[in-house]
Amino acid sequence: MAKLALGSAREATQSDCVRALIAEFICTFLFVFAGVGAAMTANKMSADPLLGLFAVAVAHALVVAVMISAGLHTSGGHLNPAVTIGLFFGGHITLFRSILYWIDQLLASSLACILLKYLTGGLETPAHTLASGVGPLQGVIWEILLTFSLLYTVYATLVDPKKGALDGLGPTLTGTHHVPLPRDEAF
Amino acid sequence: MAKLALGSAREATQSDCVRALIAEFICTFLFVFAGVGAAMTANKMSADPLLGLFAVAVAHALVVAVMISAGLHTSGGHLNPAVTIGLFFGGHITLFRSILYWIDQLLASSLACILLKYLTGGLETPAHTLASGVGPLQGVIWEILLTFSLLYTVYATLVDPKKGALDGLGPTLTGTHHVPLPRDEAF
Amino acid sequence: MAKLALGSAREATQSDCVRALIAEFICTFLFVFAGVGAAMTANKMSADPLLGLFAVAVAHALVVAVMISAGLHTSGGHLNPAVTIGLFFGGHITLFRSILYWIDQLLASSLACILLKYLTGGLETPAHTLASGVGPLQGVIWEILLTFSLLYTVYATLVDPKKGALDGLGPTLTGTHHVPLPRDEAF
Amino acid sequence: MAKLALGSAREATQSDCVRALIAEFICTFLFVFAGVGAAMTANKMSADPLLGLFAVAVAHALVVAVMISAGLHTSGGHLNPAVTIGLFFGGHITLFRSILYWIDQLLASSLACILLKYLTGGLETPAHTLASGVGPLQGVIWEILLTFSLLYTVYATLVDPKKGALDGLGPTLTGTHHVPLPRDEAF
Repeated sequence: MAKLALGSAREATQSDCVRALIAEFICTFLFVFAGVGAAMTANKMSADPLLGLFAVAVAHALVVAVMISAGLHTSGGHLNPAVTIGLFFGGHITLFRSILYWIDQLLASSLACILLKYLTGGLETPAHTLASGVGPLQGVIWEILLTFSLLYTVYATLVDPKKGALDGLGPTLTGTHHVPLPRDEAF
Repeated sequence: MAKLALGSAREATQSDCVRALIAEFICTFLFVFAGVGAAMTANKMSADPLLGLFAVAVAHALVVAVMISAGLHTSGGHLNPAVTIGLFFGGHITLFRSILYWIDQLLASSLACILLKYLTGGLETPAHTLASGVGPLQGVIWEILLTFSLLYTVYATLVDPKKGALDGLGPTLTGTHHVPLPRDEAF
Repeated sequence: MAKLALGSAREATQSDCVRALIAEFICTFLFVFAGVGAAMTANKMSADPLLGLFAVAVAHALVVAVMISAGLHTSGGHLNPAVTIGLFFGGHITLFRSILYWIDQLLASSLACILLKYLTGGLETPAHTLASGVGPLQGVIWEILLTFSLLYTVYATLVDPKKGALDGLGPTLTGTHHVPLPRDEAF
Repeated sequence: MAKLALGSAREATQSDCVRALIAEFICTFLFVFAGVGAAMTANKMSADPLLGLFAVAVAHALVVAVMISAGLHTSGGHLNPAVTIGLFFGGHITLFRSILYWIDQLLASSLACILLKYLTGGLETPAHTLASGVGPLQGVIWEILLTFSLLYTVYATLVDPKKGALDGLGPTLTGTHHVPLPRDEAF
């Protein structure tokens, strides 16, 4: 495991960092725009709640696969602050650049949600809540397990230098993490 | 970025251009035939509008993946005038050949729709309209965003010389752009 | 284009031909077993006819992808007499061996259907019929177009020596031909 | 075919075996957690039984693809005692290590089910039963056929040294075995 690196403020003006931030912004924006947009469509249209959950899960899987692939060679296609922090603890990105990524990801996803609200004539963007029968502690364990699963796959299929034969499939495999689960039932 | 090229009328008689136009015609025809055919099936059969939208989105994703792959080494598998114009502005195709592609694509998709109407005993081919609550300006922004997303993916996964490990997956990733979105709800 | 080859009866005793026939039998059997089995499940269970059609289409796409891949290096994974005859006319298989493949494929799919009937306690295996509003001539044109589409994809993604970057994806792309279409509505 | 190997108890303390058992535990846990979790979601939410079956099948296909890929270079990503025993009879794993894998897989899947019950506020984990009209003998034949199909695909796309062009796709192809079938209708 590589050492953790702080990095320095000079990175913010290096051309590869600027390019990475632009790519991460575009990929995160398009991911949230398509993912949340699909959830809004499902909320508005579907009679069967499982169908909505399933369609949203498949939409997330596909758009994550595309956007990690599109960003892979510039920003790494993190899309998610949890992936950035996971890669920081593996020594793959400096702390300073991680903070820039988080700001970048938050701005991109906020813009995506604001635009979705405007473009749908004022539909609400959906928020995750706890399903009935699921308490706060259980919710925390859900999040720990699913975030672990995401990062385990990122390391095993995208970062691991032994991955060899899986070259190119990592983004798609990471994308397919979006399986409908009981946690999501109050979606 | 390469310079824009006008090309010349002589291209129309070069064998590689003729082969490209034939391949582009076949791939665009089969894409529209399967994509619009799936939409007609969904319109006629489904009780749940989200199910129709979802099935049509998945059908588009798969047939786009197949037809870009099938055309990749002959015509490039553009399938869509927006992709052709995007590649023209990147210097990847001459203006003259782009115009031939557009005519080719329009003829192929028209033939596909005429055949679908005949082969279904007169079912209407569906047209995109604005969803309720979505005005003309919002519709234009939807189209700008989604076309940008398509071309960003085409460049990042199919054209970009650094794509490396993604070889072969570009068409599938481009195909998976078809996510159900609120824009489409009046489908 | 290679010349058509008749082949000879001696092929039937060559070990590579015997191995190919065994692999083609297993792959065709498993394809029909899963594909027709999914259609029987859909017929029995689904309230929404589009859902049945869609689930059957996705099941076919996946099982075709798997079985072409599994048979690729032994029998070629044709699964379908139309693919065998198409490859014969391209000079990729002798006439004699094509006839052995057809017998093999017919026996494998018959066994799959007989077993399905027994294993489900006597459910009927479904048969394709013309949808309402579709006449016999239109049905013939549907079959011509869809078989052309299948063979075009087989040649473009599996056979074509230029396929290069698509290596390995051909079976999956060929499998994704199974899109719900109006032809199938009476399924 | 390689000879069957008994192996020895010393393997249990070798670092590659320990690493393999940890990876197999994590991958099997995450597979069962997502797969059974999806089934619980479908049971609770869906009005259409085919939709539930289909969503669960797709969820299994995706999570199997991801978890075989993630475990491929450490444990092999068996996920299933049937795969381990199949690879033992092919001479790819010793008997002693196979037994360790089975214990590992059983513990991982038990933990996943216990956690799911806790995390959903006490929902029952679903069990496979025979569909109506399907007797015990037929059930045994279903299991034989589907397990054969799974192992045939594992050998043809993951183990076979000739697989060549399919490199990297084996896990995804193996994952797509999860097709809705009449056996499952009482799910």
